[in-house]
Amino acid sequence: MRDLLDNLFDELFPILRSITGPGLTRSMEIFSRYMPLQIESVPTGTQVFDWLVPPEWHLKSARLIHESGKVIADAATFNIHVVNYSAPVDVMLSREELEPYLHSLPDLPDAVPYATSYYNRTWGFCVSDNVRRNLPPGMYHAVIDSAFVDGGVPFGECILPGECDREILLTSYLCHPSLANNELSGPLTLLALYQRLSKWPRRRYTYRFLLNPETIGGLCYLYRRGDHLRHKLVAGMVLTCMGGPYPHLNYRLSRRGNSPIDLVLQERAARGRATVRAFDPTEGSDERQYCSPGFNLPFGQMARSYAIYPNYHNSLDDKAYMSIDSVMDSVAEVEDVLRTVEIAGHFRNLSPYGEPQLGRRGLYPNTNVASLWTNSTDVIADARTLLNRALMVLNYSDGHHSVHDIARKAGLAVEDFRIAVERLEDIGLLRLEPPGTSA
Amino acid sequence: MRDLLDNLFDELFPILRSITGPGLTRSMEIFSRYMPLQIESVPTGTQVFDWLVPPEWHLKSARLIHESGKVIADAATFNIHVVNYSAPVDVMLSREELEPYLHSLPDLPDAVPYATSYYNRTWGFCVSDNVRRNLPPGMYHAVIDSAFVDGGVPFGECILPGECDREILLTSYLCHPSLANNELSGPLTLLALYQRLSKWPRRRYTYRFLLNPETIGGLCYLYRRGDHLRHKLVAGMVLTCMGGPYPHLNYRLSRRGNSPIDLVLQERAARGRATVRAFDPTEGSDERQYCSPGFNLPFGQMARSYAIYPNYHNSLDDKAYMSIDSVMDSVAEVEDVLRTVEIAGHFRNLSPYGEPQLGRRGLYPNTNVASLWTNSTDVIADARTLLNRALMVLNYSDGHHSVHDIARKAGLAVEDFRIAVERLEDIGLLRLEPPGTSA
Amino acid sequence: MRDLLDNLFDELFPILRSITGPGLTRSMEIFSRYMPLQIESVPTGTQVFDWLVPPEWHLKSARLIHESGKVIADAATFNIHVVNYSAPVDVMLSREELEPYLHSLPDLPDAVPYATSYYNRTWGFCVSDNVRRNLPPGMYHAVIDSAFVDGGVPFGECILPGECDREILLTSYLCHPSLANNELSGPLTLLALYQRLSKWPRRRYTYRFLLNPETIGGLCYLYRRGDHLRHKLVAGMVLTCMGGPYPHLNYRLSRRGNSPIDLVLQERAARGRATVRAFDPTEGSDERQYCSPGFNLPFGQMARSYAIYPNYHNSLDDKAYMSIDSVMDSVAEVEDVLRTVEIAGHFRNLSPYGEPQLGRRGLYPNTNVASLWTNSTDVIADARTLLNRALMVLNYSDGHHSVHDIARKAGLAVEDFRIAVERLEDIGLLRLEPPGTSA
Repeated sequence: MRDLLDNLFDELFPILRSITGPGLTRSMEIFSRYMPLQIESVPTGTQVFDWLVPPEWHLKSARLIHESGKVIADAATFNIHVVNYSAPVDVMLSREELEPYLHSLPDLPDAVPYATSYYNRTWGFCVSDNVRRNLPPGMYHAVIDSAFVDGGVPFGECILPGECDREILLTSYLCHPSLANNELSGPLTLLALYQRLSKWPRRRYTYRFLLNPETIGGLCYLYRRGDHLRHKLVAGMVLTCMGGPYPHLNYRLSRRGNSPIDLVLQERAARGRATVRAFDPTEGSDERQYCSPGFNLPFGQMARSYAIYPNYHNSLDDKAYMSIDSVMDSVAEVEDVLRTVEIAGHFRNLSPYGEPQLGRRGLYPNTNVASLWTNSTDVIADARTLLNRALMVLNYSDGHHSVHDIARKAGLAVEDFRIAVERLEDIGLLRLEPPGTSA
Repeated sequence: MRDLLDNLFDELFPILRSITGPGLTRSMEIFSRYMPLQIESVPTGTQVFDWLVPPEWHLKSARLIHESGKVIADAATFNIHVVNYSAPVDVMLSREELEPYLHSLPDLPDAVPYATSYYNRTWGFCVSDNVRRNLPPGMYHAVIDSAFVDGGVPFGECILPGECDREILLTSYLCHPSLANNELSGPLTLLALYQRLSKWPRRRYTYRFLLNPETIGGLCYLYRRGDHLRHKLVAGMVLTCMGGPYPHLNYRLSRRGNSPIDLVLQERAARGRATVRAFDPTEGSDERQYCSPGFNLPFGQMARSYAIYPNYHNSLDDKAYMSIDSVMDSVAEVEDVLRTVEIAGHFRNLSPYGEPQLGRRGLYPNTNVASLWTNSTDVIADARTLLNRALMVLNYSDGHHSVHDIARKAGLAVEDFRIAVERLEDIGLLRLEPPGTSA
Repeated sequence: MRDLLDNLFDELFPILRSITGPGLTRSMEIFSRYMPLQIESVPTGTQVFDWLVPPEWHLKSARLIHESGKVIADAATFNIHVVNYSAPVDVMLSREELEPYLHSLPDLPDAVPYATSYYNRTWGFCVSDNVRRNLPPGMYHAVIDSAFVDGGVPFGECILPGECDREILLTSYLCHPSLANNELSGPLTLLALYQRLSKWPRRRYTYRFLLNPETIGGLCYLYRRGDHLRHKLVAGMVLTCMGGPYPHLNYRLSRRGNSPIDLVLQERAARGRATVRAFDPTEGSDERQYCSPGFNLPFGQMARSYAIYPNYHNSLDDKAYMSIDSVMDSVAEVEDVLRTVEIAGHFRNLSPYGEPQLGRRGLYPNTNVASLWTNSTDVIADARTLLNRALMVLNYSDGHHSVHDIARKAGLAVEDFRIAVERLEDIGLLRLEPPGTSA
């Protein structure tokens, strides 16, 4: 897996992506080799809620050349040199006239910034501040050979079916060009999770995997799948900035603050194994769209290092900073989160009138009877402890308490109830009752 | 305004008012010169909930005279000398026989108390304790020329219409005779607020102004308008004891504790700009009727110094104690409270699916585009701050969160969201959604 | 009463009881002399929820005899010597072969333990550890002459009717043989409470008294009366371990945590007059059945010393430990709890529009009028205080606030509102509104 992600990174990094256009399409096709993405597109000009789907941006070349012939910036060398979505231009400008079209970072003089202008039609070049400050006098030739072409905004998705049709949606965005942590780490994590979850022996929920460009892509997806998600979504999260030198996951809660993923991450945070932030409509990624008030879906944002590092949105965000190993850590941690989500929800006691007679089923500790508990190969607690956890699960699995709630009542972790939940499911006393269903 | 209140006070103070009768009617007519009061009356004998509307009390004269001819008390000199609502009497009594009919205040020997006996038919005189202790021996002639006449209990109201038909009700009571803070300050504040609010450029709510006698007047008003208020009332308050040497407003919460006015006052209290007390059915004014369990209206009591001063209900409660300046301070503070109430409630994001495209409307900060925010003449924060507040308002204006709730989430004051709310209303993205309506 | 309980204890103690069988039936008949128990039985073989009603256990004799003729254990001498519900056996065993069939308590070497095996058919003897460690070598004759006979599981109940048909259920269990605190104390307390409550001048609620064997008896009762209880039960409690050297009641809350009895006990606990524990599905008595999720009835467990004493389930649990005096204390305390429950619930103000005119009814303090309050023989507070409590009760008795809630608002105890509640009921302004009814 590690090698796959490593090689994919190298193949994807140099591609010039944007919110539309050939680089984005080509990148999705590369992912399609390893996960069966179905690609759909919302046509240019479609009214999507309060937005209009923009045309595709096709860039042939973008160069800024001094009259001396010296090349100052060339998208062919490093594709963030051109302001993403730049309009075509072919013009000679003095150094002063050029100024408004240049972008650099005085505080990071060696870094080339990443700039975009999707909805305000303009053009520009991004250079390091060192280059900018040493530009010679004279005239500059700015040539951008770009075109805006009718097409559409694409998204690609695939599904791993589960025991029920309630869904957990994992998504990341693919519109950023040569940037590593934000945002090749997210799609790579998504791919790795697809492969891991495809090997699980059982999935209680159906898992949906989605790649799209940020913001307009999320909006287009909601335009096409919003009603479906309203009925089927148990929880979702945007995967973003999944690498970088941070010790553990850093999760932003959904607007509701109580999605099954929210609750698991809050539990991990309480034990020092993750960090949790509140939903914030003023910053973030596509969770802002999923959590807009008309949808208010149970959607969070999973990151390792979201927007809290100086390399954010500039050329310092490279593979060395991101690190494939850090992404692999994220994959393992998110998989573990999802394993816990599988047992943290609402179950239903199928024999709710009085206590079930557990003795008859060998679950009551008895010196003369081998117990289902102790026959288990994964016993981690003595039989009485397991019985007590089963009694807790049975008593409170009434449609009003999740295993998460039960664990809190007991002062324990959700994982401490895994054996009890699985045994009770096995003997037919307990059944998952996902959100939105009722007995 | 100050002069108007000053002159009105002097005209109103000497009038003998009661819960019914000519003094009350005449006082209402005086107010009618400055606000278009519609006067209605509930006839004597009407069963009003658990009460019977009493007859009017017409007093011609009330004098207590020593056999020497010395006048001990005369309502014509100072109208609280007679127990309000006294039955007629013409009797000679010894000093000892007189005792049960005299009222004085041993702890305030110079003050004449204010006493009433509306529903227990009796008579009496109020004198200072100094006078009482020095009464000479001999016989006393008590003459009260009063009559109980069929008529009614009046109330007067007027309306300032707003953009919606949901109402804010401001009321005060006018039954007290020559007392200043309790209770000419309340009606004077009511009048001043009527004049101020009539000049507002916009009123989102409809404002109703009401004058009545205390308790039975409030009951009669509820008898006639209770159903209307149940459907239309957003918030209401009794204005009482609005003068006196206290630094700020002292508000009693409604029984619900979460009326829009309650919330604004709680916010002010948290910032040290007001004091807030809980609703208490054992003391107070007409809010006890509005907050009786059959109505449970969102009704509080606004005071500066309610019942917490020694001058309460005696002759020391005069214009010097009350002070017109203090009343003017209350007028300004209550007006400010109402301005905040106007933007503190529930609004509805009219483009709730995804984030609205604010860039297209010039609300996204952009170096190339003049922004609606910075064109504003009342900019108090930078464009990004204002954008963030607009994003907060848009995301949470879902019918479940008021601007008050949003301000609390953000750790800010309601007023910090005024510009965002007003801009979003102006561009059609936000609409007030008063209590009891739903989209 | 004390003598009755004392004598009954001595009559009941030696009887060999079990969850079924003649000893249980005989014990119920003894109770029937003092309370009109109606006895019902659920037949052997009936499917009761997840359980099958077991046959009756008829024991003629059970003896363990050494080859020397020495009697090691004899149920005729002390009936806990035989494992309760033992299968018949007649066998000669060596000391080693005997071991698995012996039960003793190494930590309490003089005590004989109490053991049962209702649903796992086996047999055994209980002896002191001192006896067990000194068993001579040689052969042992184990003879148990028992039979399993079709019959049924009985329960007995009687009713004290009240002003409404909503019920408070008091129950205890009678299956334990010669043990004192657990469990003759419970049935004795139940009987005493029946006699006390039968003398109350009024009962607002109907009281139901129930005796049954533990667990299977509770299940059978729910099988027959579960639907009735769902509609009628206001609160219930299991009475268990009501004696012992503990200073006050020790109550386990219902699963809901807010039954009327829960609330009264929580109030007592806050004042240091009781101890309260949370509901716990992993231990306890029949409340586990009443609080199973399919029923979730407002049912707690009242004890003085539940399962927290070393004498629990062994021969040290005798009359000296239990003490009739301690049981009498429990009777008095539970009766006092029930008296408070009678006034702690939801009442309805029958004149909810505005304040009722209390003056007309003599409840308003007035120097000229004798007040209903001060005519009362049980005045414990001055007239103004009582009026204030009446105003509190009237204002908040709206269907949403219980007297318990009102007391908490006022920072007082429920008992502080007794006079106000009773007077307001007497004059027709207030009416009990039990759970599940609405005006």
